[in-house]
Amino acid sequence: MSVAHLGIRIETTKKTQTVDITERVAEKVKGSRVRDGICVITVAHTTAAVFVNENADPDVQRDLLATLGRLVPDDGDYRHAEGNAPAHIKSVLVGGDVTLAVRDGELDLGRWQGIYFAEFDGPRTRNATVTVIGDRAG
Amino acid sequence: MSVAHLGIRIETTKKTQTVDITERVAEKVKGSRVRDGICVITVAHTTAAVFVNENADPDVQRDLLATLGRLVPDDGDYRHAEGNAPAHIKSVLVGGDVTLAVRDGELDLGRWQGIYFAEFDGPRTRNATVTVIGDRAG
Amino acid sequence: MSVAHLGIRIETTKKTQTVDITERVAEKVKGSRVRDGICVITVAHTTAAVFVNENADPDVQRDLLATLGRLVPDDGDYRHAEGNAPAHIKSVLVGGDVTLAVRDGELDLGRWQGIYFAEFDGPRTRNATVTVIGDRAG
Repeated sequence: MSVAHLGIRIETTKKTQTVDITERVAEKVKGSRVRDGICVITVAHTTAAVFVNENADPDVQRDLLATLGRLVPDDGDYRHAEGNAPAHIKSVLVGGDVTLAVRDGELDLGRWQGIYFAEFDGPRTRNATVTVIGDRAG
Repeated sequence: MSVAHLGIRIETTKKTQTVDITERVAEKVKGSRVRDGICVITVAHTTAAVFVNENADPDVQRDLLATLGRLVPDDGDYRHAEGNAPAHIKSVLVGGDVTLAVRDGELDLGRWQGIYFAEFDGPRTRNATVTVIGDRAG
Repeated sequence: MSVAHLGIRIETTKKTQTVDITERVAEKVKGSRVRDGICVITVAHTTAAVFVNENADPDVQRDLLATLGRLVPDDGDYRHAEGNAPAHIKSVLVGGDVTLAVRDGELDLGRWQGIYFAEFDGPRTRNATVTVIGDRAG
């Protein structure tokens, strides 16, 4: 069994935004030479998140961010002094870690699935960790 | 250490619905012969999810789906042309992966916990992957 | 590779509350002697959750609980007879498992990240399982 930790740096450009990191995660999985196991993606931030969803129509990402903005509006009943309470709350709702299967050296993603980094308080420089655990190819 | 990937096929019959897959996951864990480790359940779809919650009173599942329908209503401010934006958003909110401990060859679930597949855009034929990693029984 | 399961008991004192369990999880990781791998935290309950978020300003936790209470109010359209449907629904939205990387024997947390147990139907005695999998220090 083998364990590899690999970092990804993401430069966001907007206040709220999703960034497709599927290819970058897939490269890390390939680089780990793990054939069968799992891949865990975690974000090191409390106003960001990571999730898996459709990577075909960009409107899905727009609809997701618009809905989160409606459920957790910028001007609400918040006490957190930094003014970014909604970003923290969205981070908890979407979640900061995703685990995927790695099969035959590839991420086990469905046809329409992509991995997204979610920025809720940008623009910032962000970090994610990709940990791949499993059996290495012989 | 051992890694096993095992598929589950789920036939949903309604637009939105939850399906108790606890027994099917438990069988896969047993079949893997892993004694101590973890079990990761992932869905291969962007309009479905997987979660753990009460398996005693079916009204809990009804209340969950009703609340998700209120928070992310069918007729909202969506641009996604396929008309299933709410299903994508619910999928992100509930999440597409669950990780559980495997102890002494059994899923480490609390007394009232069951594992549910969530359908948000059915009816469809759906797939989930159960990955079990850990020490095998001697 | 090594697998360790370690229990944490949490005594909650309010109906809804978050409890910082970062130090207790970190101790379990240290005790496991795993150097590189992952740590999975799961809760054994259907009206509780676990998540990672800011551990500096307590107002963030207050804002999170207040927002969840607004999105899933105590008096809503629920059929579940026990009266704690909102607690079940919050549990699904926040999620009952978190996976983190373990690097060089330490939890891979960002500077502001803490691990929180979320109580949605307390006060109660609660249990969480910390599973650490990975390479042990030589």
